[in-house]
Parts: sequence; structure tokens; C-alpha cells
Amino acid sequence: MPGHATIKHDNAVRLRRIEGQIRGLQRMVDEDQYCIDILTQVSAATSALRSFSLSLLEEHLAHCVAEATLKGGPEAKAKVKEASDAIARLVRS
Amino acid sequence: MPGHATIKHDNAVRLRRIEGQIRGLQRMVDEDQYCIDILTQVSAATSALRSFSLSLLEEHLAHCVAEATLKGGPEAKAKVKEASDAIARLVRS
Amino acid sequence: MPGHATIKHDNAVRLRRIEGQIRGLQRMVDEDQYCIDILTQVSAATSALRSFSLSLLEEHLAHCVAEATLKGGPEAKAKVKEASDAIARLVRS
Amino acid sequence: MPGHATIKHDNAVRLRRIEGQIRGLQRMVDEDQYCIDILTQVSAATSALRSFSLSLLEEHLAHCVAEATLKGGPEAKAKVKEASDAIARLVRS
Repeated sequence: MPGHATIKHDNAVRLRRIEGQIRGLQRMVDEDQYCIDILTQVSAATSALRSFSLSLLEEHLAHCVAEATLKGGPEAKAKVKEASDAIARLVRS
Repeated sequence: MPGHATIKHDNAVRLRRIEGQIRGLQRMVDEDQYCIDILTQVSAATSALRSFSLSLLEEHLAHCVAEATLKGGPEAKAKVKEASDAIARLVRS
Repeated sequence: MPGHATIKHDNAVRLRRIEGQIRGLQRMVDEDQYCIDILTQVSAATSALRSFSLSLLEEHLAHCVAEATLKGGPEAKAKVKEASDAIARLVRS
Repeated sequence: MPGHATIKHDNAVRLRRIEGQIRGLQRMVDEDQYCIDILTQVSAATSALRSFSLSLLEEHLAHCVAEATLKGGPEAKAKVKEASDAIARLVRS
């Protein structure tokens, strides 16, 4: 399993790339590029955000939720509920 | 927490309701109803499937994944990976 | 372009198949099958509903919206607004 | 109906706001903020991208697709197909 520093670095790189996609969109709008090409680029940025959130979520389940489960008690149930709510927001966004 | 029999009964009820929505769609298509009304009903059925999958997933995290975490070992990691993959399929469906 | 009868038949076939998937889900729940397998089947049914709605929408744009555009006037704008709202509901469902 | 300059300005403002959300995410990752809070912010940015794409699409249907429909011929059908494909990418992203 990769360590915290590696994951943090990867997440930073992913987000910088997504920021680049959003700036690319600004250029496309500014240059009056064709709507469909802009929409294709929006779909790409949305997919990249999705992938980012899915890897973040996997990390969260593997660490925070697993640790809470090992400690047990109401905290464990609360963590599962919290993760499930985050998944629901993700699915509906 | 509701027991297994209650959850199973609720899931069966939800799915029968969704089956009813799909049959309703068949009637709408058969009666040549207006496309937009059919699309609204498709969105409702999709939302119902989403809610069903989200509650199934929450159950899975609270039970199967939590149990695997308590046992520990490679099985625990495998369960988190499996759940994450299911979430990814859900988000992209 | 396929005629109305062909499209109607195809739509009916698609929906019967989706109804079959929902019944399959009921069986899986009834037989206490593994959550992840049920979730995979839910994702498949959701994808099938998505495809159905996308082809319905394409038909709608090609016929109802195009006809309204040719007639012109406020009706034309209303049809585009109505279709856009349906797309928004679809995307968020 | 708002004119081209107004829409272009609004689109630019929306994208700058989304860029701000992505930079906010970078800060959150850099400061090791809680995963669930980061996920909530990802959902917000995804929703903002969705809204942007939906308004872009409505514009496209109201102008480019409507103009092609009025001209008629194969170009009209091609525009509907192209828009439908963009909607499909959007729905699946």
C-alpha cells in the first residue's frame, strides 16, 4: 500500500490537472469554440473529478472507517453512516 | 438497527415498486404517451434504483465489510477494494 | 430512419428486458445472494434505463423538438426548454 | 433571451468560480483536511460543472441545433445526433 505522502502527492497532481482542464474550458469559452467541443471537455473534467473522489473514498474506507470499526462502539456506526451519506451525495452530483 | 428479515422485506417491497414503475413505462410506450412524460417516469425509476443501491451498499459496509475488517488480514483489504469497485460501477451507471 | 412502429416495438422489448432484470433482482434478494452481486445487477439495470432514456430523448429531439422549431414562435422555445429540463432530471437521477 | 455577450460573460464567471472550487480542494488536500469534507467539496464542484454543461447544452439546442433544423437536410439530422452523443457522454461522466 502506498504511504500517506505518496497519496497526498498524487491527489495534488490530479487536482492540478483538473485545474488545468477548467482553465482550458475558460480559454475555449473565451475563444467562442464550438459548444459540443466545450461539452466534451466538461465531460472529461467531470470524469476526472469522479475518479479523484472514488480514490479518495477508497482511501477513506480503507483507513478512517476501518480504524473506527476496530475501535467499535457508536463511533464505528457513525463512520459508516457518514461514508454512506458522502457516497449518496457523490452519486447524485 | 433493523434485523435481516426486516431489511430483506423492505428490499423486496422496493423492488416490487420499481417493477411497477417499469410496467407503468411499458403501458406509457404502448399508449404512445408523450416522450417527456415517459422520460420523467424513467428518471423516477432510475432514482428509485439509486436509492435501493445506496441502502444496499450502506448495509454491506455496516456488515460484510465491518466483519472482514474485524477479522483483519488480506481479506479485509479485499473487501474494501471490492466495495470501492462496486461504488465506482454505481457512480458510472 | 426507422419508422414509429419499429421504434415502439424496440422500446417495448427494451422495457421487457429491464423488467426481467428487476425480477432477477427480486430473486437475488429472496435467495440472500451476495450484496456485491446484487449491486452489480442494479448497475446493469440502471445502465439499461439510461440507454433507454437516451434513445427516447434522441427521438424526441429529432421529431417533436424539430417540428416545433419548424413551426417557430414561442412553442419552439418552450419545447427546447422542456427538453432541457428533462435532460437535467435525467443527468441528476 | 439574453444576448451572446451576456451568456459568454456568465459562462466565464461560472468557470472562474469552479476554478476557485478546485483551488479550494488543493488547499484542503495540502492541509490534510478530513476526507469527508473534501468529498463534499468535490460533489459541489461536480454539481457546478453539471449545471454549467446543462446551460451550455440548452443554448446549443436553442441556437445551433434549431438553426440546422431550419436549414434542413442531412446537416439537421447530424446536429441532433451530435447533440444526443454529447448528452450521452454527459450522463455517463
